[in-house]
This record gives sequence, C-alpha cells and structure tokens, in this order.
Amino acid sequence: MSKRPMNVGILIFPDVEVLDFAGPFEVFSRTRLEAGPASRRSEETAPFRVFTFAQQAGPILATGGLEVAAKFGFADLPALDILLIPGGFGSRALLEDEALLAWLREAAPRVRQLCSVCTGSLVLAKAGLLKGCKATTHWGALDLLESIDADVEVMRDRRVVVDRVVSSAGVAAGIDMAFCLVEEYCGKEVADETARYIEYRRTPI
Amino acid sequence: MSKRPMNVGILIFPDVEVLDFAGPFEVFSRTRLEAGPASRRSEETAPFRVFTFAQQAGPILATGGLEVAAKFGFADLPALDILLIPGGFGSRALLEDEALLAWLREAAPRVRQLCSVCTGSLVLAKAGLLKGCKATTHWGALDLLESIDADVEVMRDRRVVVDRVVSSAGVAAGIDMAFCLVEEYCGKEVADETARYIEYRRTPI
Repeated sequence: MSKRPMNVGILIFPDVEVLDFAGPFEVFSRTRLEAGPASRRSEETAPFRVFTFAQQAGPILATGGLEVAAKFGFADLPALDILLIPGGFGSRALLEDEALLAWLREAAPRVRQLCSVCTGSLVLAKAGLLKGCKATTHWGALDLLESIDADVEVMRDRRVVVDRVVSSAGVAAGIDMAFCLVEEYCGKEVADETARYIEYRRTPI
Repeated sequence: MSKRPMNVGILIFPDVEVLDFAGPFEVFSRTRLEAGPASRRSEETAPFRVFTFAQQAGPILATGGLEVAAKFGFADLPALDILLIPGGFGSRALLEDEALLAWLREAAPRVRQLCSVCTGSLVLAKAGLLKGCKATTHWGALDLLESIDADVEVMRDRRVVVDRVVSSAGVAAGIDMAFCLVEEYCGKEVADETARYIEYRRTPI
C-alpha cells in the first residue's frame, strides 16, 4: 500500500440510508496496521483517511432524520483514492441530477477504486459507469438496476461483487464490501483484526 | 406494543463510536410492522421514533471525524421509552461528567428500557445503574467494567446480555442488541423481516 493514507470519500445526500454510509465509514476509519485497541487512539497506523462529501459542504438529513454533515463540497474535495456511493431512497433523486452524474463521470477515471453500497449502484449505472460490469444492489432494486442499463451484468445472489467497480447488496452488505477493500489493500490479517476490534462477524460474500 | 411509536433516544457525545449509535439508529428507524420496501417510505407502520440527543442540541464530532447533530438537548428532550447509551473513546470523559451521571440516574427510572452498546455500559456502571445486573461491554473493557463497580456481574462471552438493563459487546454487537429489542416489542417476524430489509444476518447473541 501507499505510504500516505488513502483518501476515502463517501458521498452523502438527502435521504441517504444511515448504515449505507456509516458502516463503511466505521470500517475504514477504525482500520489500523497495528493490532489492538491502543493503536485506535491515534491516526499513526491508519491506512485510510475517510470523510463525507456532497455537492455542497454542510448538513444533510439522512433516512430516519439523522443529521450529518458533509465535510467537503465538490469545490474543495481532496483527491480521492476510493470513491464510495451509498444508497437509500434519496438515490432516486440522484438519478435525475445531471450535475452530479456529470461530476461522477469526470471523477471516476481519476480514482483508484469506485464502489457502491445498496442502491448507490443505480446512480453509477445511470452515469454509464457500470457498462460491461458485473454489479449488484439491494434485492428490492435488482430489476431497476437492469432496466437502467442493459449492459450491466446484474448479479442476483451475491453480497459483494468485485469487478472494475466494487458493489454490494443492501445496507449492511456495505460493511462486508468495505472489509473486502481493506483486505485488498492491507491484507486479510488487518481486515480480520479490524473486524474483531469492531466485533463484526464478516458474512461470506 | 403501545399504539403511539416508542421514543428511542440515543445519547451522542464527542468521540462516540460511529457504528455504536448508527447501527441501532438504522435498525429502529427502518423497522416496520408491514413487510417490504414500500412500507419504509412512510412512518405509518413505524413502531419506533428514533432520535439523537446530547446535553446540548447541535453538532458533535464522532470517532473518525464524522460530524452528526444531536437533535435534542436535555432541556427539550421528549419523554423516552428506550434510552440507549453508545460507547467509544469519548465514553471515558463521560465517566467524570457529574452532570451527565446525575441526569442518567434521574432519567433511568422513567424509561421503559435502558440499554447500552460497547463501552456505554461503563457509563451506566459509573452512574450506579448496573448494580446487581448482568452486563457486558467491548472485549477490551471487560476488566474496566468490573473495576468500576464490583456489583456488576460481568458476562465475558456474550454478544448481548438481557437483564434489567440490556447491554451489548463492542460496536457491531449493538445491531444485534437493537434487533433483540425489536423482537421483544414487535415479535420475531418483524425483527427478522427488518433484518432482511437491511440485509443484515443476525449474529447469535
């Protein structure tokens, strides 16, 4: 892995599903290359630097009325290594948001890894970023994903799909997706130790 | 269960662990008495109304730098049915926060169910609210829990402990704790359907 921490940018938007972004945020932000609780008290061995962003920095109401803030807006967003698009009912509005879709098309080639949780993959499909790609989404949106772009190979029985874009099934599956990426960049030992730290039993993908 | 939704108040504080509060928030806020994705688009069959609170309403920096807002302060907090205390490194400061501990002692007898995630149980122990109670915490804090109050019966191998107070092990175990309470108040079918909706595989407690 690179010497500086990798920047993980998580897009948030009105009615983003809470666990869609909070699950991966937890996993990336608590990963350490050194085992045990003590290493979590500082950023010294943190391989990732995670933050939220939106078109404009500032407060956003997530599903259920949880208010969270986007740390950055498009204008001041640091260069991203990992770009993560969560889902939720609010993703439906994003499908019609031409400014966002254009931004995604422009941003995608500049990141090391593009990924989505739940219905976040609908937005990537709409932006044309899943062409020729295996992908998945929440079980309630599999048909919709297929209808947005027939060139997406929709995987109906997978929790996490690793292709050019890494996508996960609904909500909690995003935690397993994040652990997949931790494992890819930091190895299985670091991923498993982090899962043990946050007492998450990784689900087979 | 009662006809009006039950109020679930989740305490947040500086350096609260993200998944400690976001996991239960997700579970309670997405539970519906009617199955399927459509019922999630409204609050009509929602048995819980979930919100964050703190000593003062307003923004809080959670672990990893996620900014979330406390919807209510102590002064305008609605009557709670369920009072949930999450953990995280910030819980250490709460152990010395006499105003908070006094508030907890006063609030606890007025709620139907007091519960904690991760090191949130340390705060309840310090407030004297776990006397004679079986309880657990994050694996890294089991000895500390015992040292705070020798009258707590610390359970070292359990993911969720159901006693007068319901407590969970670290971080992700809070999701299983929330499902335990959903099951208690709404039945196993509703809990399992909600787990299926958020694609979470419940871990044996």
